[in-house]
Amino acid sequence: MTGARAGEALRLGVAGLGTVGAGLLALIERQHELRIPGRLEVSAVSARSRSRGRGVDISGFRWHDDPVELAEAEDVDVVVELIGGSDGPARRTVEAALRAGKPVVTANKALLAEHGVEIAALAEARGVHLLFEAAVGGAIPIVRSLRDSLSGVIAARVSGILNGTCNYILSEMLRTGAAYAEVLSEAQRLGYAERDPYLDVSGMDAAHKVLILASIAFGARPDLPQVSVEGVDRIEAMDISLASRFDYRIKLVAEAFRDASGVTCRVAPALVRIDHPLAQIGGPLNAVIVEGEPVGRLTFTGPGAGAGPTAAAVMGDLARLFDGPATAPFGAPARTLAPLLSRARVSQERSAFFIGARLSDRPGVLAALSEALAEAGVSIDKLIQDSAGDTGAAPVAILTHLCPRAAVERALVRVSELAITADVPRLIRIEARA
Amino acid sequence: MTGARAGEALRLGVAGLGTVGAGLLALIERQHELRIPGRLEVSAVSARSRSRGRGVDISGFRWHDDPVELAEAEDVDVVVELIGGSDGPARRTVEAALRAGKPVVTANKALLAEHGVEIAALAEARGVHLLFEAAVGGAIPIVRSLRDSLSGVIAARVSGILNGTCNYILSEMLRTGAAYAEVLSEAQRLGYAERDPYLDVSGMDAAHKVLILASIAFGARPDLPQVSVEGVDRIEAMDISLASRFDYRIKLVAEAFRDASGVTCRVAPALVRIDHPLAQIGGPLNAVIVEGEPVGRLTFTGPGAGAGPTAAAVMGDLARLFDGPATAPFGAPARTLAPLLSRARVSQERSAFFIGARLSDRPGVLAALSEALAEAGVSIDKLIQDSAGDTGAAPVAILTHLCPRAAVERALVRVSELAITADVPRLIRIEARA
Repeated sequence: MTGARAGEALRLGVAGLGTVGAGLLALIERQHELRIPGRLEVSAVSARSRSRGRGVDISGFRWHDDPVELAEAEDVDVVVELIGGSDGPARRTVEAALRAGKPVVTANKALLAEHGVEIAALAEARGVHLLFEAAVGGAIPIVRSLRDSLSGVIAARVSGILNGTCNYILSEMLRTGAAYAEVLSEAQRLGYAERDPYLDVSGMDAAHKVLILASIAFGARPDLPQVSVEGVDRIEAMDISLASRFDYRIKLVAEAFRDASGVTCRVAPALVRIDHPLAQIGGPLNAVIVEGEPVGRLTFTGPGAGAGPTAAAVMGDLARLFDGPATAPFGAPARTLAPLLSRARVSQERSAFFIGARLSDRPGVLAALSEALAEAGVSIDKLIQDSAGDTGAAPVAILTHLCPRAAVERALVRVSELAITADVPRLIRIEARA
Repeated sequence: MTGARAGEALRLGVAGLGTVGAGLLALIERQHELRIPGRLEVSAVSARSRSRGRGVDISGFRWHDDPVELAEAEDVDVVVELIGGSDGPARRTVEAALRAGKPVVTANKALLAEHGVEIAALAEARGVHLLFEAAVGGAIPIVRSLRDSLSGVIAARVSGILNGTCNYILSEMLRTGAAYAEVLSEAQRLGYAERDPYLDVSGMDAAHKVLILASIAFGARPDLPQVSVEGVDRIEAMDISLASRFDYRIKLVAEAFRDASGVTCRVAPALVRIDHPLAQIGGPLNAVIVEGEPVGRLTFTGPGAGAGPTAAAVMGDLARLFDGPATAPFGAPARTLAPLLSRARVSQERSAFFIGARLSDRPGVLAALSEALAEAGVSIDKLIQDSAGDTGAAPVAILTHLCPRAAVERALVRVSELAITADVPRLIRIEARA
């Protein structure tokens, strides 16, 4: 089947009962309060552990140990995949459902970023829906807006804060002055970060998400190895506090942009001026900015994760199943998606940069640092050097004028040879526009 | 016809060639750069004046003096109504198109606010699309997001800045300290305000838009007389500047909210704290905030008007025509829309309030004012009285504690009897949440 008519019932198989899955079951119980054009019934569920406490009663649903079996069950019209992970059971479940001609609703950004083309092609071949609003930006309706409402926009850039964990960590480091590791532990304690925080703090989760947005906005083929990815794990509290004295915030910015050569994707920390819309996004919020002709700039903000927001996004996709036949998951047919440009292009950029470091405890190091920059052709716009205090290493922060990234990188190689700094300097792009 | 299949061509009749109509024709010429799933061809156009300079060549399209004739023409599959106005040719054109079983895309908020129920019912009866993304928030995709993507949200409140002219005027009054009339003239000179600014500055345009949002979010029947509407034309520069000293901005806030009794709509100036998302919205931008379970708060920001943004919104609707059969224009069928609560309910609210006025040039007036408030049971949270300067009337601004609006209104009647103030005091609600 390819969907349902308004007023009909859709029978769901829900694979994955973590926070989001439990949130979805709770929201389905309240469906009479929602604006869904038909009825949703849960036929069967599947998860790793049947007995885990979830705060929702699953005794009324048939249980499958194997989510593929659930996907293929005769009384399942639609599969909701909330298992997660780019391979393994999630992928097998989604593929089994699509092969059986059943629509799939998923929140799985890793799967889409790594196997999106194949899976979209499969959905297109079977003429069924593959919907994934919940994969990017939590409850922010950015996937469907980009694909449908904004199809009259010639997008030039899609950027934003796509990982709430990193944003929470950076916000807390600014607020408390605490070190990265300390704030991360606290975030884990509060449930804002996973026990294994790698996907989040490495920038990889944001990379998955920005690829999905790039595929829709620009018709770019998701190709994870071509995304330049840097996380927040090397940012020091001193970088955040000195950037703030220059009226900047440090944010993990994910971006996809199109120029004459093609489409580039990257995730990296960036300095944004305090009057930039992303500077206002605090804590675990997400934000997406779409820039293009003839609209200028559109900004979307909201909770980027969590049971409720993600479940609501899944619900919106389920409602879509009552609204007519499937369209290509990424807007353009999967086989027409064009390759991304190489991530190496990022190192060819011209930008203004922030350099943060601690100077070694020797006379003349600031002069040597300035000289290394000058020799590489990098000119200094602003500089703050703070007192070394009892650490013996003086925090320094530099804003450069516009220059090639390669020039600053060359200067930092020289700095390393000269052992001018007591730590590895952080090189962070400054976002050009307010 | 009810739409088209992907790859097919749709033949448009464009009625109304003002700024937006001309912007649409320019965007249609660039359709190969857009992500429209089919081809758009303009068969015919209609406007008041054939010869007016528009910056686009209309010589290739058939001309109709009568837009109804255009709507009924055999080679017009879809009618784009950009005439404007709640009655007259706009309404006749839309009704003629729908009666002929043709989809309509319109930017006409006045028409939808005043006759939305009848027109939606007509579209539903014929099974054709009636789409109006461009009617609210310019390029911000709020109409479709609310109706479709957010159908899994139990909305409690939809609010925002829906009129860019008013927002520009208030922003400029803050920036320059100039009086309302002066800033309005300048806005008219720059094209940010119409020659007849009534619809904008009275709050009526925002009322049209918030009604459309209320109909979608809450299934409320658009009923303009039940919207409590106040504009910006009574705001003084001194109110804005004193509010700013209390860390508030004055914004024209449009809101629709649901409580146990039903849905209330209102447009009125409000004080929002400088850390409130609406406080950041400057100049001619628009913003919409959706609050509800289980998502918390979502914010959408962007250019609220102008040729490009509005044309892009129309384009997104035209793309929708390739995406399957029509659904009910407001989400819920027109006949099921429920009545709004009476606008009189607004005067029953409890809130904190701002009072701005100039005190008469007599001893004891501040004491008399405080006493009038105390007698009515209104307690003062904060007060600023500025020097009278050479006007002889001292600006005063008061923030009250939470109290019934009726109590403050009673106090202001007393103030008027006592002739304490040299002008008519402004009573402005303070938005409770940051």
